[in-house]
Amino acid sequence: MDKVESSPALHHAWVSSASRRVRFALEEKEIGYQSILVDLLAFEQHTPEYLALNPNGWVPTLVHDGVPVVESSVICEYIDEILQGPPLVPHDPHERARMRVWAKWTDEVVIRAFQVANWNRMMAPVARTWTDDEVEQRLAAIPVPDRREDWRRMARQPFSKADIDHAISNVRRTLERMESDLAAGPWLAGANFSLADIHLSPYIVRIDEHVDRGVRLQDYPRCSDWWQRLSSRAAFARARIEPVTFKD
Amino acid sequence: MDKVESSPALHHAWVSSASRRVRFALEEKEIGYQSILVDLLAFEQHTPEYLALNPNGWVPTLVHDGVPVVESSVICEYIDEILQGPPLVPHDPHERARMRVWAKWTDEVVIRAFQVANWNRMMAPVARTWTDDEVEQRLAAIPVPDRREDWRRMARQPFSKADIDHAISNVRRTLERMESDLAAGPWLAGANFSLADIHLSPYIVRIDEHVDRGVRLQDYPRCSDWWQRLSSRAAFARARIEPVTFKD
Repeated sequence: MDKVESSPALHHAWVSSASRRVRFALEEKEIGYQSILVDLLAFEQHTPEYLALNPNGWVPTLVHDGVPVVESSVICEYIDEILQGPPLVPHDPHERARMRVWAKWTDEVVIRAFQVANWNRMMAPVARTWTDDEVEQRLAAIPVPDRREDWRRMARQPFSKADIDHAISNVRRTLERMESDLAAGPWLAGANFSLADIHLSPYIVRIDEHVDRGVRLQDYPRCSDWWQRLSSRAAFARARIEPVTFKD
Repeated sequence: MDKVESSPALHHAWVSSASRRVRFALEEKEIGYQSILVDLLAFEQHTPEYLALNPNGWVPTLVHDGVPVVESSVICEYIDEILQGPPLVPHDPHERARMRVWAKWTDEVVIRAFQVANWNRMMAPVARTWTDDEVEQRLAAIPVPDRREDWRRMARQPFSKADIDHAISNVRRTLERMESDLAAGPWLAGANFSLADIHLSPYIVRIDEHVDRGVRLQDYPRCSDWWQRLSSRAAFARARIEPVTFKD
């Protein structure tokens, strides 16, 4: 496939982990992009204008050649296929499969685990201040039923200790799987830096939020070494993948 | 990438939807493969021998060039990349992205919806006959904690009406999204038959199981037409994607 050098537009938020994955990929390609910020706390992701681009109502969305591309793991593969720059998908088909298994694991296990483990800390204090009318108004604008239920729960019935314990066990399981795969590294999919490493980065940058639950990156020596190498990449700094702080 | 003509081995079960997706892809390629059946009701997927191939303990697993490839959506892309035959991934990058969004939707929404909607019907009658000791023994062999919790629930605390209603609403949502995307068809990702169509097929073949809940394929005219075209493909018949019957 011929690679083109054209400038996409990214609708994103600095603090959104999914947006961070896509920014990291774009920065590795050293491709300039138009940055369009979506104010998540003002719920701009639920406006009719944004929903026309992304019917799920979440960030990011990449618009390229006038067509929106959604879902961060799908956008990342799209970026690699269409834009010039260093490859982010391994050439070897077995490494490529490993990379995609990590994309799936991130999407299906890691996102949820961090969401549950962090939600009471980050969004619950905001959501608790809403009146019942405000809650219903917010929920009515959320197009995906499962996501709507999550928000209802956050606003009125925070995750239980059992939910959080389960989430933390999935965080540990992720670190264990990373440690195992990195034995055949030095990168998660094998010999080459790839989207697998990018997908995990916005979650591992926040791993210290779980120190008080006994999760410590230094207990996983290969993960620690991987994190040193990954976080010293120039593209990582440009993508602004930083720890998140909360008002207590 | 050079395509090779070599024969993979597929560890699978006839009735498993994930196995069906991979068989459909292999049959479209018209590539012979070694069929290795895994007896799910005898829990062969939890034996140490099988877990060495697939640490998640579920089917299918493709073994090619001596290396196991796991996760049906990942295996399907692997098959397209490595094996000769008609392409199953669209050439156009935007269609390709659409195809991958359907793979994600299948993995993250459709599988779960059908699992919840069918479990009480299919597995609950089996699981209810187990003693507590048998339940614990079965569960101890399941490597993925989330899956273990599902089985515990099925065996002793079946899904509630609210759970099933939610699952059915996701089945409807899937048909609505299909109907919408097929307007720009004739296939789910666009102009060409692709893995997107393959991924949905093992679930739509079972859609009649939800007639008594008001879900009818004929209410979605583009889906009905798509299903006619898809289910008359020669590869579909060879892949043995058939309705499933239950003992009541």
